[in-house]
Amino acid sequence: MSVLVEFAMFPTDQGESVSLYVSRIIKMMDESGFPYQLTPMGTVFETSTMNEALDLLSKAYDCLDSDCNRVYSSVKFDVQKNKNNRMKTKIQSIEQKIGLVKK
Amino acid sequence: MSVLVEFAMFPTDQGESVSLYVSRIIKMMDESGFPYQLTPMGTVFETSTMNEALDLLSKAYDCLDSDCNRVYSSVKFDVQKNKNNRMKTKIQSIEQKIGLVKK
Amino acid sequence: MSVLVEFAMFPTDQGESVSLYVSRIIKMMDESGFPYQLTPMGTVFETSTMNEALDLLSKAYDCLDSDCNRVYSSVKFDVQKNKNNRMKTKIQSIEQKIGLVKK
Amino acid sequence: MSVLVEFAMFPTDQGESVSLYVSRIIKMMDESGFPYQLTPMGTVFETSTMNEALDLLSKAYDCLDSDCNRVYSSVKFDVQKNKNNRMKTKIQSIEQKIGLVKK
Repeated sequence: MSVLVEFAMFPTDQGESVSLYVSRIIKMMDESGFPYQLTPMGTVFETSTMNEALDLLSKAYDCLDSDCNRVYSSVKFDVQKNKNNRMKTKIQSIEQKIGLVKK
Repeated sequence: MSVLVEFAMFPTDQGESVSLYVSRIIKMMDESGFPYQLTPMGTVFETSTMNEALDLLSKAYDCLDSDCNRVYSSVKFDVQKNKNNRMKTKIQSIEQKIGLVKK
Repeated sequence: MSVLVEFAMFPTDQGESVSLYVSRIIKMMDESGFPYQLTPMGTVFETSTMNEALDLLSKAYDCLDSDCNRVYSSVKFDVQKNKNNRMKTKIQSIEQKIGLVKK
Repeated sequence: MSVLVEFAMFPTDQGESVSLYVSRIIKMMDESGFPYQLTPMGTVFETSTMNEALDLLSKAYDCLDSDCNRVYSSVKFDVQKNKNNRMKTKIQSIEQKIGLVKK
């Protein structure tokens, strides 16, 4: 099973710039060992079970809990059985189709 | 702590109408004992810890796992310390302010 | 066509409490004439074209533009042809099915 | 002003695989001239006004309107004044901070 997750999580009580807080979460992601990708709007990662994905979200919140009073998060899940490595294959599938259309 | 969650979760491999699948999740929510509200675009619920909230999302996925090959979900979290019962108070706070503005 | 939209929009540079800002948007929604529903996590509304829906989101942003430097918004669309009044019918469809399951 | 948008948009009445539909939207994005990035969970793009961003979402829907009966979309906006080129600078800001933490 492939569980693809895109999420953003940030405090809303710490002023306009939140990159210091977000960087804690990215550091945790980096150390988790799961494949992930940082985007300008959040982080995409892939696990092989829903519970692994939810556990990473729990750890992400833990990165902010100590000094943030209010935290907002937006998360999307795309769960598909009998697939893996979709971090790469989903983009390739689109790019191939655009290539075909362009020719 | 108040953890407010808004989420939608549905299969994308079962055709255009998914209310039968969604109703399983709402039944689970109803039996969970946590306060929740069904909206035309999803479900809002409130827990007092992040892990309770994530556990409900795990159970929601379990409602679809047996017969859905692909599941999509969109989730928003609003976590705030030193608050509770925001299922009611957040709306009241807005409605009061609109009332004031209107006078 | 029925365009159902759920959205939240708020400044992230104005401190922990944002209900004063959100209330401006709800007032605009109320005056728009489109059916809408305030939830603890956002607002659900229904239009009959995608452009009407996007126009309301543009007006929502206008409510915050004058005095907010940074604004965050999360929006979900569910567009379905040959349907209308789904603000009511989607919830009814789920509630009927839960009723059937419970018997 | 910098309007960063992350969005996914896909039919839910066309079966499990939707990459053919998504590729139409990416082709439109590519031809729009706005900077964008394809991710495994959606597309990130940047415009300099809210209305430019909403216009691209309208065009994205137009790519699916002809042959899809039901379309779902999830969109996030991060609007910030007095900034530009955040497609690059937001990620750099995070990566710098992680680098500092790691030393």
